[in-house]
Amino acid sequence: MSKNYTVSNYLLDRLAHIGIRHFFGVPGDYNLQFLDHIIDHQHITWVGCTNELNAAYAADSYARCKPAAALLTTFGVGELSAVNGIAGSYAEYLPVIHVVGAPTLRAQQAGYLLHHSLGDGDFGHFARMAKEVTIAQTCLTPYNAEAEIDRLLTTALFERRPVYLVLPCDVADTPLVSRPAPMTLRQANLSEMSLQEFIVAAREKLQSACRVSVLADFLVVRFNADVVLDQWMNEVKMPHSTLLHGKSVVDETHASFTGTYLGAASVPQVKRWIEDADVVINVGVLFTDIITAVFSHHLPVEKCITIHPFEARVGQQVFSQIPMQEAVKALHQLSLSLAKQWRLPVISRPTLPNANGSRLNQRIFWRQIQDFLRPGDIVFADQGTACFGAATLTLPQGCKFIVQSLWASIGYTLAAAFGAQIAEPNRRVVLLIGDGAAQLTAQELGSMLRDGLKPVIFLLNNQGYTIERAIRGSEQRYNDIAQWNWTLLLQALANEHPVQTLQVTEPEQLQQALLEVADCRQLAFIEVVLPKMDIPELLSFISRAIQKSNTVL
Amino acid sequence: MSKNYTVSNYLLDRLAHIGIRHFFGVPGDYNLQFLDHIIDHQHITWVGCTNELNAAYAADSYARCKPAAALLTTFGVGELSAVNGIAGSYAEYLPVIHVVGAPTLRAQQAGYLLHHSLGDGDFGHFARMAKEVTIAQTCLTPYNAEAEIDRLLTTALFERRPVYLVLPCDVADTPLVSRPAPMTLRQANLSEMSLQEFIVAAREKLQSACRVSVLADFLVVRFNADVVLDQWMNEVKMPHSTLLHGKSVVDETHASFTGTYLGAASVPQVKRWIEDADVVINVGVLFTDIITAVFSHHLPVEKCITIHPFEARVGQQVFSQIPMQEAVKALHQLSLSLAKQWRLPVISRPTLPNANGSRLNQRIFWRQIQDFLRPGDIVFADQGTACFGAATLTLPQGCKFIVQSLWASIGYTLAAAFGAQIAEPNRRVVLLIGDGAAQLTAQELGSMLRDGLKPVIFLLNNQGYTIERAIRGSEQRYNDIAQWNWTLLLQALANEHPVQTLQVTEPEQLQQALLEVADCRQLAFIEVVLPKMDIPELLSFISRAIQKSNTVL
Repeated sequence: MSKNYTVSNYLLDRLAHIGIRHFFGVPGDYNLQFLDHIIDHQHITWVGCTNELNAAYAADSYARCKPAAALLTTFGVGELSAVNGIAGSYAEYLPVIHVVGAPTLRAQQAGYLLHHSLGDGDFGHFARMAKEVTIAQTCLTPYNAEAEIDRLLTTALFERRPVYLVLPCDVADTPLVSRPAPMTLRQANLSEMSLQEFIVAAREKLQSACRVSVLADFLVVRFNADVVLDQWMNEVKMPHSTLLHGKSVVDETHASFTGTYLGAASVPQVKRWIEDADVVINVGVLFTDIITAVFSHHLPVEKCITIHPFEARVGQQVFSQIPMQEAVKALHQLSLSLAKQWRLPVISRPTLPNANGSRLNQRIFWRQIQDFLRPGDIVFADQGTACFGAATLTLPQGCKFIVQSLWASIGYTLAAAFGAQIAEPNRRVVLLIGDGAAQLTAQELGSMLRDGLKPVIFLLNNQGYTIERAIRGSEQRYNDIAQWNWTLLLQALANEHPVQTLQVTEPEQLQQALLEVADCRQLAFIEVVLPKMDIPELLSFISRAIQKSNTVL
Repeated sequence: MSKNYTVSNYLLDRLAHIGIRHFFGVPGDYNLQFLDHIIDHQHITWVGCTNELNAAYAADSYARCKPAAALLTTFGVGELSAVNGIAGSYAEYLPVIHVVGAPTLRAQQAGYLLHHSLGDGDFGHFARMAKEVTIAQTCLTPYNAEAEIDRLLTTALFERRPVYLVLPCDVADTPLVSRPAPMTLRQANLSEMSLQEFIVAAREKLQSACRVSVLADFLVVRFNADVVLDQWMNEVKMPHSTLLHGKSVVDETHASFTGTYLGAASVPQVKRWIEDADVVINVGVLFTDIITAVFSHHLPVEKCITIHPFEARVGQQVFSQIPMQEAVKALHQLSLSLAKQWRLPVISRPTLPNANGSRLNQRIFWRQIQDFLRPGDIVFADQGTACFGAATLTLPQGCKFIVQSLWASIGYTLAAAFGAQIAEPNRRVVLLIGDGAAQLTAQELGSMLRDGLKPVIFLLNNQGYTIERAIRGSEQRYNDIAQWNWTLLLQALANEHPVQTLQVTEPEQLQQALLEVADCRQLAFIEVVLPKMDIPELLSFISRAIQKSNTVL
């Protein structure tokens, strides 16, 4: 191995500098040169995954816990296997640095018929594909490496989107003359004038209002406005809510937190707090179909103040060059003086009713999960019955809730839980996922066991794609899946590593199981057997809306 | 459900017409409308897979056994998960009809923020990506459906490449006025003049030759020239060989078959038969890196007659508009009269030496597999130690050998074996795959068991990515993988379905196992424990060439 300071070293040092401590991926012969450098790096640890899609999911989730994430695949086969995960990171604003080990520059230029190419001598196909789902792309050469690495990393962090770096295997080992200079991260432009105009317009709107509510969503966390938002909500009593995608961006134990807003599918009092307000302040909100029960939210733009990542709006008026944090801080200040005149909230938060019965069902299950959750947990709910059940939970303080509401790729959370547990080894990771979804990505359980991770995993076994059954074809064969023995599966993947597996069919068994697994002494896997067509009420509502929209929207 | 004759019915009838009997895929809410029609179709059966990449692999392999294959995914998440498989079908010339269930046309045009989109209102991203890895693309509407379906199907069959059809969920149920008219498949143009000129040039080259050999590759099968090639080789005694990618395109039991040609990695007598010939006739050959030990073949163009799918060459001279079959038939005719003057081949075929020892190793394993194979088997060898070991086998008559030598996506063959066994339920499918590769796609074993399929699967357990170890990093941690208990895994996936699992570490155990599983009474899974760094000789040679090319090529 070369003792020179190489392009690989530079890239790794830059990644470490922006807070990355792990590299997810799968080896392939075009990335082994770079992999040697990863293994040797002082601050970055290699995390091998069973396949590239799972690796991309894990990286996406790591970027939800850390400033950014890094993913390594090989050319062609590897990068394309990962691309669904990358597209999800694009849709949901996660800075994943995707490094693709590629054939040597010379071989690419000569158009050789190499493995993992399409055999047509064109090595640009996959970079052109990556353009659709990443915010910036480059092919590193000995001459552009330093500038391009810095450009891509700063762009990824600024835009909160994935970037795509092709690293030819000869370039990986190319020596560089100098060690990296300090790196300057890009800051969002702030126009003081625009901010002052925004404040004037917002004051005018807010001072004539009697009822003012705040609705927050996932972009609050992506653009680092969660701390300032939290300070605001602590200091000023205002009814506030989140969309499901943004669940956990505010402290749900706060007295003024009303619950999750889901458009027409909301609990009535949550719907009233938001829709009956005179002014609604939207912070980092994206009104996508599923979380609004297909655009059933009633929030006329005239009564909204809306804070986007880089601009703010009051009604139809747009104020550009205002970073989200600045707009939040400004509204915080404004509301300190105006709040006196607003109606004081007395909020009765919807809580899950007690539920009894001799057989487990969704109601009983979620009631018990509610009591199981602890402050600081990282909770994953897969895009199926799991996330619609979890929507009704009230999260303890400091919990992080991860759901992929827009991209909505089933199976995502299983590999994502792996990524988060790597990022946050000292927090309890709780994964809630259906059997249909878990089959897509099941092999990553083996990686968690190999690495001695200890998440608590609830497999909601309802014999197939229940979310699809809810939408269409409840008895159609295509919604049935192979029935696995999950207890044996976990033992097979654990092999000689410790694992705790439990199967529960009755409420008392679940209660007992929750006591046993609470402290994460080893990876715990609880298979919760539920009736096939037992659908959380919320899912029922939303799936009817989706079915309708797939015909007439 | 509508009783009308719809766009879905038309598409399914067309697929049935071109010989498709199964539809692989994964349900998603944008494709459920179409799925209902699949379930109701008289000639086409739905085959649900655990994830989309596996479904794409299964479809690719089905298209290696049948005229074409059909794959159904949902928009965004589903299609992108499958795209590595589709790219493989493009690289290796397989007509896979990829149907993507999508949001309604109106919702797309309106740019709604729908799930499975990037949330930017642009529904064209994934179609633009598909352009890079498919030969034709379309978005079906009520007005273009019939014409576009016919255009895409005929293009796929003619070009032997995948095509991409977006089927919005409202269009799926749109009624059509008339039942389909007969479908006209596209035929390759034949220029009689060009053919005559080719014959003249070929005769001139061949009549001055003393030693003439034939080298065939996978495109022979793709462009349906295998039958005419077989007739030729049966009637005229000419030494002939295949590349590894084309293994089984000719009958390996034929007296004039010399063995597999691998450039500098060939067995010496095979290399001599090909490289020392005065004229080499290449049929459907693609000299890609792995199968030529990185372009180490010595075949100056001046001494070659080369038959491509739609043109033929004699030395540097190109003769266009000659379909492969016609060129093969012409050379067959020519050689009938010329062969008298050619040196008669007396071919001593390389055979595997007897191998003994108390512990299993690669030599002993492949020797026993040689005896296990039977006429008509479909043999899959994954892109790793498996395919380089299998390269040395002599296939019994009528065997089909499937390896993905160009695209080379590890894990492919496991799901591909599923697709082939669906296509050919009465043939014995034999799968040879390493443990590292099998982890990428392992869940599809569950689908085989669910469907009662009975392949014989050999898992070469050598504790990690041995092919990567051979290339670089033999002791690096990135080539280690989680160690699964494969016996338990099979039992977990089988659940209540019958399965036979065996683990062998000694030659006698393997021999016994082979007897037990020979008749495929149920799915058989034999875990063959092999030394970690026991590398087939051929792989050793080729991996050194690859390692070198990744530095200096």
